[in-house]
Amino acid sequence: MTVPEPQGPEPHDAVDVIRAKRDGKPIPEDALRWMVDAYTRGYVMDAQMAAFAMAVLLNGMSRDEIRVMTDAMIASGERMGFAGLGKPTVDKHSTGGVGDKITLPLAPLVAVFGVAVPQLSGRGLGHTGGTLDKLESIPGWRAALTNDELFAQLRDVGAVICAAGSGLAPADKKLYALRDVTGTVEAIPLIASSIMSKKIAEGTDSLVLDVKFGSGAFMQDVDRARELARTMVALGTDSGVATTALLTDMNTPLGLAIGNANEVRESIEVLAGGGPADIVELTVALAREMLALAGQPDADVEGALRDGRAMDVWRAMIRAQDGDPDAALPAPRESHTVTASASGVITRMDALPFGIAAWRLGAGRARAEDAVIHSAGIDLHAKPGDPVSAGQPVFTLVGDDKARFERALEALQGAWDVGTAAPARTPLVFERITA
Amino acid sequence: MTVPEPQGPEPHDAVDVIRAKRDGKPIPEDALRWMVDAYTRGYVMDAQMAAFAMAVLLNGMSRDEIRVMTDAMIASGERMGFAGLGKPTVDKHSTGGVGDKITLPLAPLVAVFGVAVPQLSGRGLGHTGGTLDKLESIPGWRAALTNDELFAQLRDVGAVICAAGSGLAPADKKLYALRDVTGTVEAIPLIASSIMSKKIAEGTDSLVLDVKFGSGAFMQDVDRARELARTMVALGTDSGVATTALLTDMNTPLGLAIGNANEVRESIEVLAGGGPADIVELTVALAREMLALAGQPDADVEGALRDGRAMDVWRAMIRAQDGDPDAALPAPRESHTVTASASGVITRMDALPFGIAAWRLGAGRARAEDAVIHSAGIDLHAKPGDPVSAGQPVFTLVGDDKARFERALEALQGAWDVGTAAPARTPLVFERITA
Repeated sequence: MTVPEPQGPEPHDAVDVIRAKRDGKPIPEDALRWMVDAYTRGYVMDAQMAAFAMAVLLNGMSRDEIRVMTDAMIASGERMGFAGLGKPTVDKHSTGGVGDKITLPLAPLVAVFGVAVPQLSGRGLGHTGGTLDKLESIPGWRAALTNDELFAQLRDVGAVICAAGSGLAPADKKLYALRDVTGTVEAIPLIASSIMSKKIAEGTDSLVLDVKFGSGAFMQDVDRARELARTMVALGTDSGVATTALLTDMNTPLGLAIGNANEVRESIEVLAGGGPADIVELTVALAREMLALAGQPDADVEGALRDGRAMDVWRAMIRAQDGDPDAALPAPRESHTVTASASGVITRMDALPFGIAAWRLGAGRARAEDAVIHSAGIDLHAKPGDPVSAGQPVFTLVGDDKARFERALEALQGAWDVGTAAPARTPLVFERITA
Repeated sequence: MTVPEPQGPEPHDAVDVIRAKRDGKPIPEDALRWMVDAYTRGYVMDAQMAAFAMAVLLNGMSRDEIRVMTDAMIASGERMGFAGLGKPTVDKHSTGGVGDKITLPLAPLVAVFGVAVPQLSGRGLGHTGGTLDKLESIPGWRAALTNDELFAQLRDVGAVICAAGSGLAPADKKLYALRDVTGTVEAIPLIASSIMSKKIAEGTDSLVLDVKFGSGAFMQDVDRARELARTMVALGTDSGVATTALLTDMNTPLGLAIGNANEVRESIEVLAGGGPADIVELTVALAREMLALAGQPDADVEGALRDGRAMDVWRAMIRAQDGDPDAALPAPRESHTVTASASGVITRMDALPFGIAAWRLGAGRARAEDAVIHSAGIDLHAKPGDPVSAGQPVFTLVGDDKARFERALEALQGAWDVGTAAPARTPLVFERITA
C-alpha cells in the first residue's frame, strides 16, 4: 500500500478520476480518456474500473463525459468507413427482446432503395435472441466476413448482416464483462457508450435505435428506456451520426415465432408480403425512419414488401454469404402444444417468461461459448386480443430434446391469461425521439 | 460471461448484494456475512468488493448493516479476551493526527488506577505518525508481544502498547488495501467497521475514541467526524463494548514535538508533571473518559501525573518490553531553524503541512515496508497565540539527512502566519459523544 502525498489532484491518476465521479465533480477530458485507455491496457485495475462504474451508475455522467467516454472506447480499436461506397449507409440497433427478428426483413427492405445497410450484429445471451443465431439456421450461411467482403456486399447487394469484428471498441468488450459481474450493467451512460462506441466505430452515416421497454426488454421501465434513447440520440448526433430512436413495447413477444429457424420462417413471410401485423408494423416503422435519415422520407416501403423487391434483396444477401435461401430450415423433432382450458380472449402473454422458456428449450445460451439449438423455440397460435375456445392450441413448444420441455413449461406458469374482455390495445411504437 | 436466469434474488450471490446496496435496499444479514467471508476467502472478486464499497460510500449503511459487517470482519479472524485478568480493560483509539503522542502518557496514567490498558497499535502511514514508530525510538523496546506476554504485562504492569497481531480481523486488512486504491477510503460505515472490528475482536470492556477533525486529520470536516464518532459509538455499544468519543481539533499540531524520538521526550515531560498544555489537557480528558467507563469517574488523574505514579507505570511498561527508560534517545545530526521575519503573534500553524514536512524529513513512511528515521521531525518553539519577535526561532527541522530539508521547507511555505492580533481560541475538545 502506497500513500501519495496530498498535493492536490494529479492528472491521470485512477483514484483521482474515481473520486471526481464519486464526488459529483466533472472529470477532465484527458483524464477520462486516459482512464479508458489505461484500463484497456491493464494498467488501471478491474477493481478501480468497477468502483468507477458504480460511481457512474449512482452519480451519472454529463453529456460531454459520455461523449468522451464513447470516443475513448472507439479509439481503443479500429474504425471502419463506407465513404467509398458512393451511397448513404444506415444501420439499426435494437436493445433486444423476445421474438425480435426485425433486422432480418428490415435490412433487405431498406437496401431496396439504394441505401447501404451494414448490420454488424451479435449473438444472443440470456433470454433475448441473437440475430446471427437466427440466420445460422440457414444451411451454409456464414456470419464472419472480411472487411473487403463486407464492403463488396454492401456495394453489390446493399444489405449485410454479419458478425461485428473483434477490432471494434475492444475497451467495451472488457468493460462489459466487468460490469456483468459487478452490478453495474444498468448504468445508462455506460449502456449508451457501449452500444454507440461500436456503431460509431463502424462508420455508418446514420442510425435508427429500437429502444425497447417492458418485461421482455433490458429496460423494464419506459422512463429509463426514454433516458437511454435520449442519451444515445445525443451521443450519435454529437459524433456526427444522424440518429433517431423509437421507444417500442416489449411486454408481449413480437410476432408468433420465438426461437431461431422459426423466426427466419416468419421473416420470410413478411418479405413475401404477409406475416404477423406487429412484425410488419415495426419493420415498416423502422424502415421509414432509416430511409428518412438516408434522404428518402417518402419511399414506398409497403410496396417493396408487397411486390417482392425486398425478397429479392434478401435472397441475394443470403446467397452472398454462402447461404441457400431455398434450403429447408432445421425442423424440430419434438413438440408439445399447450391449449386453452377455458374459452375467452387472451388478455396477457408476458414476454419475459416466454423468452426464458425458449431459452430453456435451447434457443438461447447461458454462456457465450455455448451452441444454440436452431430448431428449438415456441410457436404462438394466438396473441393478446385473440379469442380462444377451450381446448384450442395457444402455443407449441418445439425442439430436439424432450427433457427440456418440463423446465420450459415451468417458466410459462402464470405467463399468460385468458379472460372475458379483450385487453386495452397499447401502441407498439410508443414514442419517437430525435435530436 | 455467464448470465443467470432472472428468477429473483439468489441468496449469497455477490451481484445481488451489490445491487441491493446500489438500489438502497436492505441487505439480508446472512448475505452480508457471506459477502465478507467469501471476499476474505477470495471467492468474491476485488472488482465486486470495490463496486460494493463505492455503493456503500454513496448510499450509506444502516446501523444494523454496519453491525453485521463489523461482526463478519471480526469473525474472519481470532478473538481475544481479558476476562481472566480480574480487572476492567479500557482502550483508546485515535483516528490520527500530527504530533499525536497521547497514547504514550495516557496508557500508563490510566493503569495507575488498577485498570488494564491494552493499546494494540499500528505504525504511521503518510503524514500521520504511528505510536509504535515513536516507541521504537527507545533502545531495546520491542513492539511484538505474544498473547501470553500481553496478558502477563496487563496483569503485572497494567499498561501495554504493542503491535496488533495479524490474526485480528484479516478481512479488514484486505478490504482496507482495496479501498486505498479504489477511492472508497472515505466511506464512514467502512471506516467505522474497520476501526471497531479490530477493537471489538481485541476484547476490551470499554473504549474511548479520539475522533479528530481539521486539516491534519483524516476527516477535515467536523460534521463528518461527528457522524463517524456517532457511528462508532453505536457500533461499540451494539457489540457490548462501552464506548465514548471525543471530537478533538486537529487543525494545529498537538504539542511542540512532531516526529518520533522528540515525541517520546515530550511524553516523558508530561509524565513528569510538565509538558505542553494541550497535550496535558487532552491526556487528562481522555484518561477521565476511560476511567469513567471503568467505574472510576472521580479518579485524581492530575495527581497521578504530578506525584510520579504515572511515570512509575511508564518505566515498568517500557522495561517489560525490553526497553531502557533511562537510555538516551536518538539525537539528530542535522537541524535547521526557521525564525520569524517580523514581530507579532503566531496566528496559524496548519497541521497538514507540518505533518507532511515531518514525513519528508523521514519521520513517516510512504510504504508500509519503509523504515522511519527516529531522530527526524520538527520541534516547535511557539504555537498559535504565542508572541514572537523578528528573528526569534519559530521551529526547528531535525534529522539525519540535510538533503531532505529543502522539500520539508517547501511543504511549510504558507503553513504558518504571524499577525498582530492573537487568534480566537477554539476548544481542543470540541464535543463529547456518548451512547
